[in-house]
Amino acid sequence: MNVALAQINYHIGNFSDNCKKIKDAIEKAKEKKADLIVFSELAVCGYPPRDFLDFTDFIDKSYNVLYDISELTDNIAVIIGSPSYNKKVKGKHLFNSAFFIHEKEIKQIVNKTLLPTYDIFDEYRYFEPNDEFNIIDFKGHRIALTICEDLWNIFEDGIYKINPMDELSKLNPDLIINISASPFSYIHDSERERILVANVKKYKIPLVYVNHIGAQTEMLFDGGSMVINSKGVIVEELDYFKEDFRICNIDNISSFFSHHSPSTIKKVSKIEKIHDALVMGLRNYFEKQGFKKAVLGLSGGIDSAVVLVLAERALGKENVLAVLMPSKYSSDHSVSDAIQLAENLGVKYETLNIQDVVDTFENTLQPVFNNLPHNVTEENIQARTRGVLLMGLSNKFGYILLNTSNKSELAVGYGTLYGDMCGGLSVIGDVYKSEVFELANFINKDEEIIPLNTIIKPPSAELRPDQKDSDSLPDYSILDKILYEYIELHQGPREIINSGYEETLVKRILKLVNTNEYKRYQTPPILRVSPKAFGMGRRLPIVAKYLS
Amino acid sequence: MNVALAQINYHIGNFSDNCKKIKDAIEKAKEKKADLIVFSELAVCGYPPRDFLDFTDFIDKSYNVLYDISELTDNIAVIIGSPSYNKKVKGKHLFNSAFFIHEKEIKQIVNKTLLPTYDIFDEYRYFEPNDEFNIIDFKGHRIALTICEDLWNIFEDGIYKINPMDELSKLNPDLIINISASPFSYIHDSERERILVANVKKYKIPLVYVNHIGAQTEMLFDGGSMVINSKGVIVEELDYFKEDFRICNIDNISSFFSHHSPSTIKKVSKIEKIHDALVMGLRNYFEKQGFKKAVLGLSGGIDSAVVLVLAERALGKENVLAVLMPSKYSSDHSVSDAIQLAENLGVKYETLNIQDVVDTFENTLQPVFNNLPHNVTEENIQARTRGVLLMGLSNKFGYILLNTSNKSELAVGYGTLYGDMCGGLSVIGDVYKSEVFELANFINKDEEIIPLNTIIKPPSAELRPDQKDSDSLPDYSILDKILYEYIELHQGPREIINSGYEETLVKRILKLVNTNEYKRYQTPPILRVSPKAFGMGRRLPIVAKYLS
Repeated sequence: MNVALAQINYHIGNFSDNCKKIKDAIEKAKEKKADLIVFSELAVCGYPPRDFLDFTDFIDKSYNVLYDISELTDNIAVIIGSPSYNKKVKGKHLFNSAFFIHEKEIKQIVNKTLLPTYDIFDEYRYFEPNDEFNIIDFKGHRIALTICEDLWNIFEDGIYKINPMDELSKLNPDLIINISASPFSYIHDSERERILVANVKKYKIPLVYVNHIGAQTEMLFDGGSMVINSKGVIVEELDYFKEDFRICNIDNISSFFSHHSPSTIKKVSKIEKIHDALVMGLRNYFEKQGFKKAVLGLSGGIDSAVVLVLAERALGKENVLAVLMPSKYSSDHSVSDAIQLAENLGVKYETLNIQDVVDTFENTLQPVFNNLPHNVTEENIQARTRGVLLMGLSNKFGYILLNTSNKSELAVGYGTLYGDMCGGLSVIGDVYKSEVFELANFINKDEEIIPLNTIIKPPSAELRPDQKDSDSLPDYSILDKILYEYIELHQGPREIINSGYEETLVKRILKLVNTNEYKRYQTPPILRVSPKAFGMGRRLPIVAKYLS
Repeated sequence: MNVALAQINYHIGNFSDNCKKIKDAIEKAKEKKADLIVFSELAVCGYPPRDFLDFTDFIDKSYNVLYDISELTDNIAVIIGSPSYNKKVKGKHLFNSAFFIHEKEIKQIVNKTLLPTYDIFDEYRYFEPNDEFNIIDFKGHRIALTICEDLWNIFEDGIYKINPMDELSKLNPDLIINISASPFSYIHDSERERILVANVKKYKIPLVYVNHIGAQTEMLFDGGSMVINSKGVIVEELDYFKEDFRICNIDNISSFFSHHSPSTIKKVSKIEKIHDALVMGLRNYFEKQGFKKAVLGLSGGIDSAVVLVLAERALGKENVLAVLMPSKYSSDHSVSDAIQLAENLGVKYETLNIQDVVDTFENTLQPVFNNLPHNVTEENIQARTRGVLLMGLSNKFGYILLNTSNKSELAVGYGTLYGDMCGGLSVIGDVYKSEVFELANFINKDEEIIPLNTIIKPPSAELRPDQKDSDSLPDYSILDKILYEYIELHQGPREIINSGYEETLVKRILKLVNTNEYKRYQTPPILRVSPKAFGMGRRLPIVAKYLS
């Protein structure tokens, strides 16, 4: 049996474009004599559709795509993800389903059993869990059809009481097919491979796995669809961060018996994965929103330098505008480093002086401020003046403003709301400052694209004379480790202190993280590359007193 | 049996304050000879704790409160909500539990069966659902102890397959106790009463119901705890929007048989409920964050006028600063109406002229804008200049900026990001413009607090000469009805058109709502008063093409 794997970049709610891509893939599979083509989870409407699922109109449009593509299934079978109605009186109204379509008919509907409801996932918000198990008989094969999370409860301490493959294996399947929307994080590809191989080894049958690819705002899907033979060897592996298509004769794969799996992703470092994910995330955000051009403030510091390079790679140098907005506190180097980078990239830049506006703000406020000493207020006015100028360019010319805040400063609130926290999309808001340095070095691996001085000088917001980040914050090498233990590992204060950090410092940092939740609430969406990003995947109350 | 109902305003993660309030209530109940005291759902840690539940330290601190209060239970029993560990290997690690504590011992733990995971609720994100049912035997009574949602699946078409009271009723209980964290919306109090009475009528035993009270950022809990006798008559009803305490001898309530239920809430109009909820929401936000003072921009329009009145009522006139920031497009009336309102309330006001800053922004941008005609860009610069001035006052003096956007403009994106969309808290972001008018009239019911001219003049953003909202938007009387059908009722375009609205208009409005999701993503938290508010309760993708 020839199985086609269609790894496609869908657009949420864009039924006509999704339908066209699906039909094109079916035609291609038919040309290449595939018996079956497999698409990913909720392919028809895009993943995650979120509360659009509350609209009957949205579900009806999904069904219409299914009816439309079923016309092409005269001599090929299709497995594709779509929401479907639960016709029983009790329970939620929808299932997250895989449709098996053949001979112009919907022959079988398999519903998802395990509904991830943690981190960025909200599936139980919408869907009724499945509790009936059936096999699909097709061309002499008995297919155990599962949806994403359905394969992930394989270990003893799983968060669900049921393991769908244990139920399905009672029905003697000889092939597992799993359709997924499994988002990227820099550890998730290896986790995914471990889980898939563990399933194959437990049930001793091959597995066809088809994943989403592409960015849906903050959620990045990396693809990496694959076929694993019954010995646990990956015999086909589709591309990462790109659409891909592959046909595999699954009857001839059991002879592959190698400890060398052709995995490409494992050859790639964490930082390269993050780099590629961010470029895809940026590009897809613009493509799917119908935008072409980006603007950002280029300070001469490392954060905006890295974002500029990523934007140039995602959108093309002709579509990016860098804006230098030095103040009296900016070092000479900041300006020359910024210009050097723009020139290295061939990106257009403008210079706007903020001092006149800042002075006018201060004059306007003078009757109320009444000669009170300068403090963080005036620093914020500088940052907000830059924000207004950038948004002015955005409004006048249709540029989308890129936010350049990093994860470390978002964590501790070292940024100005409506100032440097402005933007339509946060590019590196899930990248700790130490990882931003790694990204800069990765970008410079072959040539000095980012001026070395930008990388080696001490980080500074340059909002007052001789300011350095280290005046207010511990060294990023320590800060980032404590933040990682708290945010990614969910360690409490005792555990972090016990792992070797100074008590006062730990408590100070955790308090900063918690009390700055109000700032993060108003942050632009953040491209997610870690297992725990700020945004939809991390939900904390603003009004709270815990560790603060 | 004397049962005490303790309706308390908890603070999320503030274990020491919560513990003190709980202990004080126990002491009071003991003095008044109560046999049992009942607290609300997750009382120990506050509701909703959200991802703080991922921290072992947070759960351990909840247990410590339970151990602490159990010391007081020598001659009184306590029922109280807290997270608890699930000790089984499979399943999520926590339950949402009700602890029955007596004679200094945790005698029984009852876990929540139905975990609301819709709108603002995320309970299945954290908790394992219960599937074991037991009765609590106490003082000759057989108590069916349930937690909030557990009583809400009573009708045939429920969203859960199981109804916990059907299981518990097999064990012959003679009393239902329900501990809740059931948030306010202007229809939720009557829904709640209907559901509770339906349970009593079905199982023919009395019900003791204890609810949260107080605001947790955007979620407002209105209290209204009650006792219903076995005939379905409300025999005790605690206060709304206030802490309250009541003792009820539940053995003597079956004789009440009246069609007059002493419900106070039903006498109150929708607008009065919204008014009271917003005042509580504002007050609690400030109290729980440790803030005292608020600032807001007072334009002379109706939105900021209503917010100023609510702030004065919540925080006291001495804690509110109104800032007038007229431009060359402001009408004379706007200034005089704003001053009149501030004087009516006895609230301090300042006037700042924005024109110098706006001119300096335009001069600074001139080399890039290059004499392009004025457009919405320059309007946004005015709004953002006001935002920066207000945030300057906030930073310098510690005022919290109140956002004054209404739900209609948030819906269609008629507002400036980082301009009038700034603020720590959105006070009327869940109140449609037509309801803002109703609020203004309610505020003026006894005397003209808000100048009549503010109410009767045509709404305008005053960002260009003679601008009116109706230049860009349909009349609010029509706009708000279409928005309500789309947002609150989840009607799609066909249903809304079929209900009598013009097709082009409906499609234009739905497109505006969907394409402005990116703006709402960066909106401050919004006090929730309707069944469907923007924010956590309405989750939509930004990058999408549905109806846009």
